[in-house]
Amino acid sequence: MIKVGIVGGTGYTGVELLRLLAKHPEVELRVITSRSKAGMEVAELYPNLRGHLELAFSQPDVEQLKSCDVVFSATPNGIAMTMARELVDAGVRIIDLAADFRLSDPAVWEKWYGMPHSCEDLLQEAVYGLPEMNRESIRDARVLANPGCYPTAVQLGFLPLIEKGLVQLDGLIADCKSGVSGAGRGANVGTLQAESAESFKAYGVPGHRHWPEIYQGVGRMAQGGDIGLTFVPHLVPMIRGIHATLYMRPAAKLGDLQSLYEERYQNEPFVDILPAGSHPETRSVRGSNVCRIALHQPEDSNRIIVLSVIDNLVKGASGQAVQNMNIMFGFAEGAGLDLVALMP
Amino acid sequence: MIKVGIVGGTGYTGVELLRLLAKHPEVELRVITSRSKAGMEVAELYPNLRGHLELAFSQPDVEQLKSCDVVFSATPNGIAMTMARELVDAGVRIIDLAADFRLSDPAVWEKWYGMPHSCEDLLQEAVYGLPEMNRESIRDARVLANPGCYPTAVQLGFLPLIEKGLVQLDGLIADCKSGVSGAGRGANVGTLQAESAESFKAYGVPGHRHWPEIYQGVGRMAQGGDIGLTFVPHLVPMIRGIHATLYMRPAAKLGDLQSLYEERYQNEPFVDILPAGSHPETRSVRGSNVCRIALHQPEDSNRIIVLSVIDNLVKGASGQAVQNMNIMFGFAEGAGLDLVALMP
Amino acid sequence: MIKVGIVGGTGYTGVELLRLLAKHPEVELRVITSRSKAGMEVAELYPNLRGHLELAFSQPDVEQLKSCDVVFSATPNGIAMTMARELVDAGVRIIDLAADFRLSDPAVWEKWYGMPHSCEDLLQEAVYGLPEMNRESIRDARVLANPGCYPTAVQLGFLPLIEKGLVQLDGLIADCKSGVSGAGRGANVGTLQAESAESFKAYGVPGHRHWPEIYQGVGRMAQGGDIGLTFVPHLVPMIRGIHATLYMRPAAKLGDLQSLYEERYQNEPFVDILPAGSHPETRSVRGSNVCRIALHQPEDSNRIIVLSVIDNLVKGASGQAVQNMNIMFGFAEGAGLDLVALMP
Amino acid sequence: MIKVGIVGGTGYTGVELLRLLAKHPEVELRVITSRSKAGMEVAELYPNLRGHLELAFSQPDVEQLKSCDVVFSATPNGIAMTMARELVDAGVRIIDLAADFRLSDPAVWEKWYGMPHSCEDLLQEAVYGLPEMNRESIRDARVLANPGCYPTAVQLGFLPLIEKGLVQLDGLIADCKSGVSGAGRGANVGTLQAESAESFKAYGVPGHRHWPEIYQGVGRMAQGGDIGLTFVPHLVPMIRGIHATLYMRPAAKLGDLQSLYEERYQNEPFVDILPAGSHPETRSVRGSNVCRIALHQPEDSNRIIVLSVIDNLVKGASGQAVQNMNIMFGFAEGAGLDLVALMP
Repeated sequence: MIKVGIVGGTGYTGVELLRLLAKHPEVELRVITSRSKAGMEVAELYPNLRGHLELAFSQPDVEQLKSCDVVFSATPNGIAMTMARELVDAGVRIIDLAADFRLSDPAVWEKWYGMPHSCEDLLQEAVYGLPEMNRESIRDARVLANPGCYPTAVQLGFLPLIEKGLVQLDGLIADCKSGVSGAGRGANVGTLQAESAESFKAYGVPGHRHWPEIYQGVGRMAQGGDIGLTFVPHLVPMIRGIHATLYMRPAAKLGDLQSLYEERYQNEPFVDILPAGSHPETRSVRGSNVCRIALHQPEDSNRIIVLSVIDNLVKGASGQAVQNMNIMFGFAEGAGLDLVALMP
Repeated sequence: MIKVGIVGGTGYTGVELLRLLAKHPEVELRVITSRSKAGMEVAELYPNLRGHLELAFSQPDVEQLKSCDVVFSATPNGIAMTMARELVDAGVRIIDLAADFRLSDPAVWEKWYGMPHSCEDLLQEAVYGLPEMNRESIRDARVLANPGCYPTAVQLGFLPLIEKGLVQLDGLIADCKSGVSGAGRGANVGTLQAESAESFKAYGVPGHRHWPEIYQGVGRMAQGGDIGLTFVPHLVPMIRGIHATLYMRPAAKLGDLQSLYEERYQNEPFVDILPAGSHPETRSVRGSNVCRIALHQPEDSNRIIVLSVIDNLVKGASGQAVQNMNIMFGFAEGAGLDLVALMP
Repeated sequence: MIKVGIVGGTGYTGVELLRLLAKHPEVELRVITSRSKAGMEVAELYPNLRGHLELAFSQPDVEQLKSCDVVFSATPNGIAMTMARELVDAGVRIIDLAADFRLSDPAVWEKWYGMPHSCEDLLQEAVYGLPEMNRESIRDARVLANPGCYPTAVQLGFLPLIEKGLVQLDGLIADCKSGVSGAGRGANVGTLQAESAESFKAYGVPGHRHWPEIYQGVGRMAQGGDIGLTFVPHLVPMIRGIHATLYMRPAAKLGDLQSLYEERYQNEPFVDILPAGSHPETRSVRGSNVCRIALHQPEDSNRIIVLSVIDNLVKGASGQAVQNMNIMFGFAEGAGLDLVALMP
Repeated sequence: MIKVGIVGGTGYTGVELLRLLAKHPEVELRVITSRSKAGMEVAELYPNLRGHLELAFSQPDVEQLKSCDVVFSATPNGIAMTMARELVDAGVRIIDLAADFRLSDPAVWEKWYGMPHSCEDLLQEAVYGLPEMNRESIRDARVLANPGCYPTAVQLGFLPLIEKGLVQLDGLIADCKSGVSGAGRGANVGTLQAESAESFKAYGVPGHRHWPEIYQGVGRMAQGGDIGLTFVPHLVPMIRGIHATLYMRPAAKLGDLQSLYEERYQNEPFVDILPAGSHPETRSVRGSNVCRIALHQPEDSNRIIVLSVIDNLVKGASGQAVQNMNIMFGFAEGAGLDLVALMP
């Protein structure tokens, strides 16, 4: 049993961490902080946890967090980096669900996040927590940057083709769609049900913060080459789920695409390559940590089309964070994550 | 480990049984039948089960079912009663998720279900599987009638007041609301998303098959007295969930309503009385086997108002069926049912 | 052509007024005020109006409003009463879509709205704008109180039976359900799509501001008698629509319910009594000013059940306000309101 | 006033035609046929039409249709072509909302629609009814092929750039998303609310019938050149709306994209180019005949991105059909189509 703390637990990634960690066989939940809800029982805010968790939100207190083995930071961007050094020095490992440690170049980070990075040394050390690319480094990470939701779905879809050099790097397109929980639990007119339900739109087309994260990831897969990446996110009138539709142009004559993906991911517990001809539905992963992928090469197109779905709050956030914790502490990688998606 | 069979597994109660039983520690799933999908892998129809269950649908075959310890019947009404005698004689216990064994009076059954009852002797013996009313009888049941979804939410809301004789029996009102999964997975214009989404309506006001089931249950609680019961079901544009709003008129000066309910259900693992003043949300039980109840006596009304929510596919169907199985076979009552609702 | 102003036009009743008035043959839209959006083109906030309306929000300015023949107040409660005296004295007629003039007893108003009423004299004079009860008084109203959304659906459903004294007044129950647009366009966690979609709940059971409004209306219909009224509102995961399910106990042997309602409303342009046995759907009135009603007396119940649906933003707010304006200015009552509901 | 008939009026394009034509100032609705509903009042099936239309469905009868000036065919594919010759010979003009006359090459038609074309001569003569490309030919059309929903949104988005030769033709990508009403009103498990709500998926990736229609349209715009077109449709959990996200690679240095589109469509009543930087929402056109378009060239991409939204049942079907009728009969092009989108 390890001692676990959560900083900033009132948002959707926070409650999803609680859903998963409350049943995790190796975890003792010690502390969950919230400035605005300090003193309130967690199950009062999230009644789904009634009977599963007796814990109240407390004021953030670094001393208290130092008694944990690992701290999940589920705060807005810019918070984790202010606490990281002190916690790491106290021997606490950090899993940041926000973006503070995702981009290794601080200049790029500052450009996209609009503030200076206050913890550059740990930024260099931080490990990008996409297990399918990076499992070995994750084991010993002191600071783990949990990937963004879109970047998870997109990178898992791109990886087998790009790391083999089989596609042209200058014309990568990721047309992505996310449910509204991706916008978080903040009071916001744009994601009121009366605004976002029964409608569909793109957003952030001129520039979205997940673009540099995907770009960085593609660069690591490709190990060189000029990358042209177009990323367009859209808002889907549903609560959970991300669907990435990826367009790539072959760089050479391709072999069997289906086998390439099946082999690449054959030992991955949370990537599922669907049978040829499939169209993955986001609901098939709702509440589960799985990424399901299908591959297409339409006769009338000169493109490879990869369809990749995840639950943005699980494999796209809290589930992947737990998966990373499992790797970091030597637990079974699937501990606490053996969940069947809720369908219908 | 007991050997389990499911008859008619392609509908929503079928897949929900699979979701629960695939992870049940005491269960070995032996057979799942479907005439229309025989030969197809279960996970092809329900991709959420990929990686959790390797089993194919098979043609219904009573001989094969006889090798099971228990058979769940998740078929349309009128099927279970044709197989029950043969299975029971072979020592197989039956849990019927349809209505064949819910009404103990065959004449009433025939009136509401429009066909003669073909298994009247077992009808007398069958146990109505609402554990909170009937746990002892359930232990030894050979034929268990799993309650309907509305009747579960309504009866759990009525029970503490009616069994104590604290309300007038001639003016009971149950205004109920259900998500669309309650209508099943059959192709049906009325529950196409383009028809049922973004709209709300009552249905079956002149008469609904759950009326006699609730009426029978109220009669058993009340042990005499003339019952006047009005039941109006409505269709809610959401997938899962039932909300019952119950109106009762006090028969006498009431004591503390909140304590009455808390005490009545204090040992019930799947009934949760919310703090005074609460309004339960159906999403707080989505995917879980819990019934959450809140109590109100508005100052400006002479009525007691009880709000009761369940997930129609879990406590309203497959979860309650598993709970009944656990009781019947002496397992921990919550085995396989320790699920946190998915929220958001 | 009359000159029309709108105060507080950024909310949902504001944009719905604009949708209707932009096409009204007798209306010239002169001014629409908004403190927060002053200077912004209306069509920038509401792109559905692009090409239909060229008007910008302006700062509220009573002098400018005085140039109008009628001013619609679509502000939060408590604003209209501060401007009413000055506008009325300038000869401007006022249609208030908020609650300031709905309750004729200032003490009741203050109890429910938590502030003193600052315009009691006009409160006495104000006319409650439910045309089906009150058409003659509306014609000459200087201050018109446009009814609340729930009260409109409920009162139209109760009216024919109560005004004839055919039901017991002490046990009236109105179980009501509303889409989320009824909560307005304010940023609010509770009506984020990720919170309110895929869930159903009651709210305000201990007391809701529409209770005294319905109570007052029932009192006027009944002309004496002790009234017992229970009102429970619920939130439906859809954008538009209200469904009222009304329960009444007959006071005497009833004649033909269907004829009673058909005759009562035969000359009403915006009340539609459905054929016997019907179940009205809220989508059948989406975007239109119609209230559709169906009547039931289930065999197994001793209750009359009335089902009544409206679009909360049209007959429940802005459409009824335009209907009232039409009556006040002697236009055809349906001018600007000849709209077919959007279905599907 | 012209006499109008509708063949096959029970589906969604049928009821949408009725909504529009019931209020059209130049139209007398004479006949609406349906084999399955013959004898039923239209308003019984579609209660939104109560009070707006008194007409019953009748058995299809070519003699009766011959008394019309124009017949809309809102049947499944393959029906219009069997009646077209006889109607045209009788002087009746035909507007086909299905696909029978959309593809000018009968071999291509047969390949994609899986049946021989039974009316090849009229196929040659038929005019493709996209007014923005083809207005002059529409005026005199005897047989008008109303475009598909996806092809309308996609072609209007591609047109200004492709007809000027400003983009590379070999890498056109149309990533499209449609609400579920696009699947029609047939009983179908896949579009049950419990299946399609709260989920998102691609479909038809290996090949969709709108691909050859878009391909043909692009060919006409481009007047030569090798075209590579990738088209991926997705199902959005909402009722109405199409969003096309188009990716193009510049063929040359581009001038001002915004001006190019604004000028191209400046005289088009139903195409609205949004201000630079916009993201059109499908709800901004719900119920209206408008196509709204926005243009982007993200700094970090070498692609032009065009966002185009329509209501699939209006500009994508019945509204465009009425627009075409208006052009064919010399009415004001917007007659009957001056509708403000319903928002929220």
